[in-house]
Amino acid sequence: MGNEAVRDVLRPFLHPQGIAVIGATEDPRKLGYGVMANLLHPEWGFPGPVYPINPRRSAVLGRPAYPDVRAVPDPVDLALILIPAPQVPAAVAACGERGVQGVIVLSGGFRELGEEGECLQRKIVTLAHEYGMRVMGPNGIGVIDTTLPLNTTFIRAMPLSGPVGFISQSGALCGGVVDWTRPRGIGFSRLYSIGNAADLTESDFLELLAEDPTTRVICLYVEEIRDGRRFYEVAARVAREKPVLLLKGGRTQAGQEAARSHTGALAGTLEAYRAACQDAGVHWCTSVQELVEAAYGLATLSLPDKHHVTVVTNAGGPAAVAGDALADADLVLAPLQEETQSALRQLLPPAAQVYPVVDMLGAAGPEEYTRALCAVLNDPHVDAALVIHVPQATVSPREVVHALLAARDTTPKPLVLALPGAESTLDALRESNSKGLPAVTFPEDAARVLAHLNMRREVVRRASMRPQRPTELPAAPVFPSAHVLTDWDLRSVLERYRIPLPRAVRATTPEEAAARAQDVGFPVALKLLSPDALHKTAVGGVVLGLDEPEAVMSAAQQMWEDFQKHVPDGKWQGLEVQAMVPVGIEVILGIVRDPQFGPLVMCGTGGVLVEVVRDIAFALAPLTDERAQALLYRTRVPTLLRRRVRDASRAETALVQALVHLSWLAVDWRELQELDLNPIIVTPDGKHLYAVDARAVAKRPSTEGEWTKGE
Amino acid sequence: MGNEAVRDVLRPFLHPQGIAVIGATEDPRKLGYGVMANLLHPEWGFPGPVYPINPRRSAVLGRPAYPDVRAVPDPVDLALILIPAPQVPAAVAACGERGVQGVIVLSGGFRELGEEGECLQRKIVTLAHEYGMRVMGPNGIGVIDTTLPLNTTFIRAMPLSGPVGFISQSGALCGGVVDWTRPRGIGFSRLYSIGNAADLTESDFLELLAEDPTTRVICLYVEEIRDGRRFYEVAARVAREKPVLLLKGGRTQAGQEAARSHTGALAGTLEAYRAACQDAGVHWCTSVQELVEAAYGLATLSLPDKHHVTVVTNAGGPAAVAGDALADADLVLAPLQEETQSALRQLLPPAAQVYPVVDMLGAAGPEEYTRALCAVLNDPHVDAALVIHVPQATVSPREVVHALLAARDTTPKPLVLALPGAESTLDALRESNSKGLPAVTFPEDAARVLAHLNMRREVVRRASMRPQRPTELPAAPVFPSAHVLTDWDLRSVLERYRIPLPRAVRATTPEEAAARAQDVGFPVALKLLSPDALHKTAVGGVVLGLDEPEAVMSAAQQMWEDFQKHVPDGKWQGLEVQAMVPVGIEVILGIVRDPQFGPLVMCGTGGVLVEVVRDIAFALAPLTDERAQALLYRTRVPTLLRRRVRDASRAETALVQALVHLSWLAVDWRELQELDLNPIIVTPDGKHLYAVDARAVAKRPSTEGEWTKGE
Repeated sequence: MGNEAVRDVLRPFLHPQGIAVIGATEDPRKLGYGVMANLLHPEWGFPGPVYPINPRRSAVLGRPAYPDVRAVPDPVDLALILIPAPQVPAAVAACGERGVQGVIVLSGGFRELGEEGECLQRKIVTLAHEYGMRVMGPNGIGVIDTTLPLNTTFIRAMPLSGPVGFISQSGALCGGVVDWTRPRGIGFSRLYSIGNAADLTESDFLELLAEDPTTRVICLYVEEIRDGRRFYEVAARVAREKPVLLLKGGRTQAGQEAARSHTGALAGTLEAYRAACQDAGVHWCTSVQELVEAAYGLATLSLPDKHHVTVVTNAGGPAAVAGDALADADLVLAPLQEETQSALRQLLPPAAQVYPVVDMLGAAGPEEYTRALCAVLNDPHVDAALVIHVPQATVSPREVVHALLAARDTTPKPLVLALPGAESTLDALRESNSKGLPAVTFPEDAARVLAHLNMRREVVRRASMRPQRPTELPAAPVFPSAHVLTDWDLRSVLERYRIPLPRAVRATTPEEAAARAQDVGFPVALKLLSPDALHKTAVGGVVLGLDEPEAVMSAAQQMWEDFQKHVPDGKWQGLEVQAMVPVGIEVILGIVRDPQFGPLVMCGTGGVLVEVVRDIAFALAPLTDERAQALLYRTRVPTLLRRRVRDASRAETALVQALVHLSWLAVDWRELQELDLNPIIVTPDGKHLYAVDARAVAKRPSTEGEWTKGE
Repeated sequence: MGNEAVRDVLRPFLHPQGIAVIGATEDPRKLGYGVMANLLHPEWGFPGPVYPINPRRSAVLGRPAYPDVRAVPDPVDLALILIPAPQVPAAVAACGERGVQGVIVLSGGFRELGEEGECLQRKIVTLAHEYGMRVMGPNGIGVIDTTLPLNTTFIRAMPLSGPVGFISQSGALCGGVVDWTRPRGIGFSRLYSIGNAADLTESDFLELLAEDPTTRVICLYVEEIRDGRRFYEVAARVAREKPVLLLKGGRTQAGQEAARSHTGALAGTLEAYRAACQDAGVHWCTSVQELVEAAYGLATLSLPDKHHVTVVTNAGGPAAVAGDALADADLVLAPLQEETQSALRQLLPPAAQVYPVVDMLGAAGPEEYTRALCAVLNDPHVDAALVIHVPQATVSPREVVHALLAARDTTPKPLVLALPGAESTLDALRESNSKGLPAVTFPEDAARVLAHLNMRREVVRRASMRPQRPTELPAAPVFPSAHVLTDWDLRSVLERYRIPLPRAVRATTPEEAAARAQDVGFPVALKLLSPDALHKTAVGGVVLGLDEPEAVMSAAQQMWEDFQKHVPDGKWQGLEVQAMVPVGIEVILGIVRDPQFGPLVMCGTGGVLVEVVRDIAFALAPLTDERAQALLYRTRVPTLLRRRVRDASRAETALVQALVHLSWLAVDWRELQELDLNPIIVTPDGKHLYAVDARAVAKRPSTEGEWTKGE
């Protein structure tokens, strides 16, 4: 959907002309009262007409009520529905007949309750579409817009106005956030509570907020993204322009046991979400507080040039905690210039510390804060400041905030304030936030805000090129049609996708194996080929280092006997005779297909212990060279290469190429479910890599691929 | 120090009879004013006599002032000193002459400023001891005791009274904590701000609070523990009786690069702190908020029987976040009985969810909370409840708290409340906490409190037996005196400590190596022995799988040539001919000596990639069998054994034995600095393990071991 189209479709949710409230009531225990109270609120009431619909009353809260939405006069383009779920379809149809364009279903009782509810939910969407209407919800509380103002929810208050946009699959979470942020001075532009997202989804509102000039940063709380590929594409586009942050609720690990390959076992739905966010440049948050505070920091501060932070404090203990939190976030204490240090020594009492942390001691007042901070921020080695003010009997926290605001206005460098406390600091914290200087409670919270600024700089820096299909790859590839694929089945596919393989031949009998080993060149490895024994070592299906024909013959004979014994009904596809690859670094590369996000590429430390070592990372296919490299650097493989391979950078380049090629294989081969290349051996000189073992599982040819939308 | 002795020594800090304030003033910008204001406060003033000492005034805040502490009448046993550092020694001497017994030096300007300050600090301690006085501080703010009351600090307010004891090396942190907890209803018994801990340390006050009946749980904030062994022993003893929690500020990673073995490189001071806390049963916290909230939960709640938690909520989104946080903390959602589920279905509206989470939906009021919670807590499968109340327009959060308090009184099961919000929830949160029902802001905070309860159950469960020296170990062992020790040097020591080794002989020439290989039995491994080539593989000093005398001869010849080439000035100690151990699971065991905490034992996944894999854990030596097993289980080694070894439990037992034996070696061999056994190979049948390679670094015999105090 283009941006024009989005704005057009969403116009009734953005700028409604008139609003009908189906289920409006004066009973203060009912949600239909809460909604009316917000729409008619003296302070944040909706400036257009509001029509209560209630067949049992002639007026609600002083507004004339209508028995049916079809009886409402012009203008009306948005309807809020708060009646029991079974009655909703009739109400939706009535809205359609009246010419309403947008419907917000606040009622619950749909997909969240199971199959029956899902049917009802589908029914209202189908009905709405028949009338050309779009639906927000059900089970969501709609729109809060601090600019119009408009508040379709039953949340008790209006959020402060400000630069943060918020999209949530949970309405209650919006309520908690509004209640938490009001006394803290953090403000919002628009909140969209999309509930079950039966029709309009997080991606639609993401596109909308991307275009909204009052929204400088966008937060998302999601539990399930059904069209993962669309979300990824929209988020990647939006994140180029504005920071996007995401908190994922309800992560589950179920169903991993069943997977048949390493890659399958190591991936999880959560990994797909994380990979999508990472690749799209979306900030991954792990708590509500982090989501909101990081968003506010990103909305109000410039980005630091580099990752050097100076801590300016009136107390050592909290500064130590801050230093640890900065280090945990890969931020480092700025190496202050000698001039800065001596300037600080001039300004501060003799017992004060000026480096590595500027500890002005407990008596420091507003003037000390201003002067120290100006000195620090003038230092070209300082990219950002974390300021701590522990409440002291002799200093007013609000005056400290005023001092910081003055210093802030002299520099574009970002500044975050921690005010450990509450009773005597909350007013100062609110004032600081409301004047655009992000303030938090604890120093570790401040470090986290700075970590997000640093992350954002990386997102902005990263060239956001579209992946280009490498010309050396096959244009119209054909893939094997088996369900479970061995090493040998995959050989020609991998060759076409430029994954380097050791020399190998296939033999069906021990005699043939012994004879053909000569062609491969001794020493050789012998491998059992059977879709029924993917984990070959468990059935004696791999023998390494055979260095003469007799050894090959007897190993092959043994393998055949073991196979008959351990897998009596298994399909024997013969033996692979493979050139031995010298011992080297073992890497794993893989592909797994996520139901929401499509193909993911995996890489990490390889070998038989891959599940134990668990040094792996995922990214969405296809990859650019740069993203492939970033993926590799999320694992310890580069460290491993630098320690144990002579030409590490050559090996790294080769792995990056293999990842890019593999990512296109993942895109092209739609039936592929899981693919493991484990190990890929990197030779100690770094000149070669070989995929010495491979296995894959594809969809059975009869079934349809579920991920086709985004392709 | 026995507990009697501690109470006696600390009596002036516990129950002072009269207090002199050296540096008392009426200038409100000075800290000496803040201290006087607290001591004379109408609400929390000290009930005994307070004597301001100020040569320039006849009275301070209405109390007669004395020019010198020696002029103060009886009773006076505690002096607070708030004058510039250089004048402190004279004041301390004057206190001694007057017969004061305890001194709190609030002034800064000592060890925290470097060497000169440290001298001054030592001087005041020496002086005090000459007069039989004990010192708290310097650079600490002393004592807050909500029971007397007594407040020697210049913190602006008094904390609420309650069950939490707090010991801090940072005074400002106490200030922040008091300010943060007052509006939240969390109360304290005593706070000790020990500053630089020049004389009285964290361990002294830990012993004191252990004896204090009003203190139910003890929090520590520390930056440096100088006598780590004493702390460990005191903490382990105290933690058996009361929960102890610790936040370590100012973690550093410096100096690791220089270490010469794996174990050395992987250990860090922080690891020693973590190991000491783990072994002593001290809760490790990573933020101030976690420290305080977990402490309050532990002080007010019973421990859950098992780790099954039920979430009772009025909103789905925050419950999803809670579920994730519970899972992250190894807690699981309780499998509610069918009876409980149907009871809940009866009580709640049809659209409510009863399993796995009890989501009562937005309209849920106090009655629903009471009834649902009673039903849930009656279920024998439920060990604890995490209750969420998101503020709603139609429900009063305080009434929900009253409902929860009623339900709480029917059961000993622990209950934690999350109130996401602030503006409309803070009153309810304060009331909940002040009535002993722990309440926090976000669901993830509540999950963390429950995680600490669960941890505490483990601490209590763990038999806290003292390690017993196994009788099979040598009684008066003698250790090699070299500085750098090879495999061969360590052989007899390891044998005496029952670490299984492969058969091996030493040879000095290639001919001898070839001849003696026969005695060992083919195939053999050949290893270079030289203290100048500890990392043997780098100089071609290891060749594996030699299966005839000629191969040994030529490999030995090559090794000799390579050694001369690569390490021309190196000391040649010959060659070790070792029986080959079959390929198996590689484990690393090691020892490292920490300057504060003494010998630590390490274990983890072994092999050449140990620094990359980084699957390691540390514990303080010596170990019991149980602690050795717990140490092993902090790594992935048991998983590895179960996956790849036939008799995994036999192998596990053998590793536990090896760890215990190694831990006694660590205690016995005082000069030992670092020891690596890497790899220890566990054979695939699980019947044997062999330390196939070892290296060690000991103190040069001339120097004295720095860790002797605790032994």
